[in-house]
Amino acid sequence: MPRVRTFLPIVAIALLGCAHPPFDPDAEAHKLLQRDAEWSEVASAGKDVEKTISYWSDDAVVIPQGQPSIEGKAAIREFVTASFHTPGFSIRWKSEKPQFSADGKLAYMRGTSTTTVPGPNGSTMTLQGRAITIWRLDADGQWRCVVDMWNDPPAAAPAG
Amino acid sequence: MPRVRTFLPIVAIALLGCAHPPFDPDAEAHKLLQRDAEWSEVASAGKDVEKTISYWSDDAVVIPQGQPSIEGKAAIREFVTASFHTPGFSIRWKSEKPQFSADGKLAYMRGTSTTTVPGPNGSTMTLQGRAITIWRLDADGQWRCVVDMWNDPPAAAPAG
Repeated sequence: MPRVRTFLPIVAIALLGCAHPPFDPDAEAHKLLQRDAEWSEVASAGKDVEKTISYWSDDAVVIPQGQPSIEGKAAIREFVTASFHTPGFSIRWKSEKPQFSADGKLAYMRGTSTTTVPGPNGSTMTLQGRAITIWRLDADGQWRCVVDMWNDPPAAAPAG
Repeated sequence: MPRVRTFLPIVAIALLGCAHPPFDPDAEAHKLLQRDAEWSEVASAGKDVEKTISYWSDDAVVIPQGQPSIEGKAAIREFVTASFHTPGFSIRWKSEKPQFSADGKLAYMRGTSTTTVPGPNGSTMTLQGRAITIWRLDADGQWRCVVDMWNDPPAAAPAG
């Protein structure tokens, strides 16, 4: 069947032109959540600035509640360095239920964070936060955070 | 050329299998910004609850600064109805620079909002906000907002 044999490479070339490999949402969700959990571990240790900022893309934007937006890797490095040098600072977070674009190349997740910051008289205050992170699958096959925004949950009812 | 004529439908079918039409980022950005501006107009009029909530997807999540998250269309309807019934309430926003997934089916934008709310002694207070909205191109070809989160910019320096 010489004609069939000639068809196949053409179909294969046409399919390669689709430019996206098969996308398995469950596998990708697992991968992204694992990467985010690893990021939280690195950040919570509060020591390795370069490793911590490697999870953001070079063009990432961080929009913290009540503080100026932080645009790009250099500004994020300063932000993280200052945080890690703040006595009493710590952060830890957990994200959930990644949602993907149909092609599996962009994703977003909701998350919750716990931060400790210096309080009055040498104490520390613990703050809860809610976050949205948006992630991009870069050409090197690595997920990186491109937008990182958080705000305050409702004020807790007074105890007792 | 009988062989070439036979090839073409096969290549066409293979290409249709790619399942996404050509995506023009500039055209889609224009379309999305226009839709967002139209949404702000409808919301700022403060009258048409159903039209206002039609820009969110049925599964949308709204995460307002300092208030409980609002999940799904029914809860969003209550939220918007309550806002529109609040004397002195108004909202207006502007988004910019949409960023798209490679397939053009998911997008996000930064935005800024101006809200007026009741203040002390019958006055109104004007609040500035920063927002991230995430948009999904639904199967009917319409962009709908799936995540809508905002927080406060840094407190303004005291005037004078």
